Amino acid sequence: MILRIDHVGIACHDLEATIALYQKTFGLKVVHREVNEEQGVREAMLHVADGETGGSYIQLLEPLHPDTPVGKFLATRGEGVHHVAYGVSDVAGAMDEIAATGVRLIDKTPRHGSMNSSIAFLHPKDVGGVLTELVQAPPRDS
Amino acid sequence: MILRIDHVGIACHDLEATIALYQKTFGLKVVHREVNEEQGVREAMLHVADGETGGSYIQLLEPLHPDTPVGKFLATRGEGVHHVAYGVSDVAGAMDEIAATGVRLIDKTPRHGSMNSSIAFLHPKDVGGVLTELVQAPPRDS
Repeated sequence: MILRIDHVGIACHDLEATIALYQKTFGLKVVHREVNEEQGVREAMLHVADGETGGSYIQLLEPLHPDTPVGKFLATRGEGVHHVAYGVSDVAGAMDEIAATGVRLIDKTPRHGSMNSSIAFLHPKDVGGVLTELVQAPPRDS
Repeated sequence: MILRIDHVGIACHDLEATIALYQKTFGLKVVHREVNEEQGVREAMLHVADGETGGSYIQLLEPLHPDTPVGKFLATRGEGVHHVAYGVSDVAGAMDEIAATGVRLIDKTPRHGSMNSSIAFLHPKDVGGVLTELVQAPPRDS
């Protein structure tokens, strides 16, 4: 079911400063920026590697407001890893398979993710404390 | 410098139970087990994907004792993502390059990591709150 580590999502207070840090320290470059009003974040995808089934990225997330999931995460946990995302070929099918094992889904249907992907989050309490995301990349010609 | 997301390290209280959870939920399988007395952990590597430069894994970590880095992490943060590891071709060279940018290294020289890799940790305070590891995989014929 799991094809790759699609991305690691990292919460930060200052997106531009953190992009600069990752570029200077590791040479990682931004390949996509997006404001996701639904999730309340301003985000950037930094490209790490390409694979047969899709890319791997570091996703930097800055909350649009304190009263958002990432804003609350920063207030209680501070900057750091917010979630881990796995690439799948069929997000709806993976959601069904995973729900059947007893793991709760935060999203009942797939929703919009970075770079036109289709995503769903699983409940961290059912995945060993890790907020876990499933990512179906868009068709290559999209 | 960065070739891949080599692994995401996840701290857990019960290694066997968490392996079973990841296998049941995601179909991920253990490809390596190890006790690292130096780091005070019992660990398992679950294979996610292969790439041109090496594999990608989920690393599950159970502390050998409460008075270890992972034991203290669990006591203060609870179960969840402990660190993010990037694959590099030359860990000593990457350490030098990164130190030159002002990021502090936890390890002054490379040390033993999972599956005979050579690793070094960077200081999380200098990498946006993320405990970050560099991993040089062993030669393929080793």
